[in-house]
Amino acid sequence: MNESKKSLTAEEEALFNKWLQQKKDFAENSIKECLEQVYPEKKAIHDVMNYAMYNGGKRLRPILVFEGAEIAGMELQKAVPAACALEMIHCYSLVHDDLPAMDDDDYRRGKLSCHKAFGEDMAILAGDALLTGAFEVLAGAICYNDLERTRLLRVIGEIALAAGSNGMISGQVLDLKSEDQNINQADLREIHELKTGRLFVASLRAGAILGGLDAESLEELTLYAENFGLAFQITDDILDVIGNEQDMGKPIGSDEKSHKATYPGLFGMEKAQEMARESVINCIDNLRGFGTKADFLRYLAYYLLGRSN
Amino acid sequence: MNESKKSLTAEEEALFNKWLQQKKDFAENSIKECLEQVYPEKKAIHDVMNYAMYNGGKRLRPILVFEGAEIAGMELQKAVPAACALEMIHCYSLVHDDLPAMDDDDYRRGKLSCHKAFGEDMAILAGDALLTGAFEVLAGAICYNDLERTRLLRVIGEIALAAGSNGMISGQVLDLKSEDQNINQADLREIHELKTGRLFVASLRAGAILGGLDAESLEELTLYAENFGLAFQITDDILDVIGNEQDMGKPIGSDEKSHKATYPGLFGMEKAQEMARESVINCIDNLRGFGTKADFLRYLAYYLLGRSN
Repeated sequence: MNESKKSLTAEEEALFNKWLQQKKDFAENSIKECLEQVYPEKKAIHDVMNYAMYNGGKRLRPILVFEGAEIAGMELQKAVPAACALEMIHCYSLVHDDLPAMDDDDYRRGKLSCHKAFGEDMAILAGDALLTGAFEVLAGAICYNDLERTRLLRVIGEIALAAGSNGMISGQVLDLKSEDQNINQADLREIHELKTGRLFVASLRAGAILGGLDAESLEELTLYAENFGLAFQITDDILDVIGNEQDMGKPIGSDEKSHKATYPGLFGMEKAQEMARESVINCIDNLRGFGTKADFLRYLAYYLLGRSN
Repeated sequence: MNESKKSLTAEEEALFNKWLQQKKDFAENSIKECLEQVYPEKKAIHDVMNYAMYNGGKRLRPILVFEGAEIAGMELQKAVPAACALEMIHCYSLVHDDLPAMDDDDYRRGKLSCHKAFGEDMAILAGDALLTGAFEVLAGAICYNDLERTRLLRVIGEIALAAGSNGMISGQVLDLKSEDQNINQADLREIHELKTGRLFVASLRAGAILGGLDAESLEELTLYAENFGLAFQITDDILDVIGNEQDMGKPIGSDEKSHKATYPGLFGMEKAQEMARESVINCIDNLRGFGTKADFLRYLAYYLLGRSN
């Protein structure tokens, strides 16, 4: 792949879409197998957890876990617990974010949000169960006898840090407190870096760490993931203004309605689109040393610019 | 200690109370040091987490972790992360249980419950942060170079299992669904075994597993902890009827008000007290092989029968 290009040709895009679908299917099947193994016996709460997990999500976090593992040269099967855990954490955060006391959203990807479908009590508990389950699944990776224990513990620690009170949760706190406030670019970037970026970074790093990638390459992947998170958030904000409700599965304009600070709101649409492109270029730049084995990650960064949901 | 006795003498009780206070102080200080180390920089959410953590609790779960570690002959310092993590999980569960959508309790141990003091959104997030933080703290035990990694991973897995959708959370689901229902002894026992018992069992086992206790002794401690959980719950139900509001820090009669099934409600007060005594005897019976090093656990079981909060 030519690294200096600014966008994909139609042919490249068609090829990438097929590739992305394959990766997504692999992630989807891995998650399903993993959950069925951990929860063979279905209790009432598992129906709610499944509703939250099988929700038409893009599975970007598991895909990043597997990319990290592949670049590190590890058998993908051993990365399944980490991939599943990161999606569980992502899905729990959506369930709790949608609650009336939080963002109060009735819909999520075109379906009733969890508390609308099952009640607030069950939504709170299902979120708690997904979060707890993520660590149950991670610890279960011990079943791979040749998976290095110290690496696995390091990954558990990094994921908890990324999702916790110094990571995703503090981003959500800042986000809630920022409604109706005048915030500047640095504040906005911090909110998104914490709320969205940290989990993307933890995902790509998790696979790479489990696979024993060297420190320098790991640092480059970390910079990729940070810029990926930024580009994801800017394009998310853009889609909330100009997206198609059907593609998005939720009403557009929700950020403006809830008086949330966004990139287009703060900088105007044109500048926001320029910033998204810059972040994508930064993504690609950080993959210089990886050769063709990082091609999918390169395409994935471009994909953010053209995504419709 | 004479193992066939049915209660403590006044002298033994005074001695035990001093001992318990020492163990509680040790647990309290360990938790404080551990949290200050993990969260040196205070964010808004940490104030809410601290409010939930420093709440006058009995610290029974950390105390059990340290007892397990001591019986296994391990340096107590290495059990601090597990002790802290189990108290964090216990405290998160209280914060979420008190929410309006759940048990809707305005007070907890004489203080405003978390959502009353900080708002529902912050209470949900602080609970999430404590739960996530528990695993951050556990993974942080990797700093002890000679702590066996496979044991640590096993403990992380057991704690997540005990707290998750097949453990504590499914107990809370059954509890919520049992309000206003006719339930029998087996149902009641299952609810409490899941909601309360599992975390006690995980606590005592965590310390013992980290310390490398043999399988047979571990099984005996497990039976102790199961009976301990049962005795704890029966005496909890009894206190909700005949307890002193000041000692309890919450209104008594709350179970009856919310139409919850309880041991005194199902069996009458006299039979419930008899059942609590039986569970305590079962606790002691399972410590036959441990000699004097399990004396504190023996006293602790008797203590449940006389506790006032």
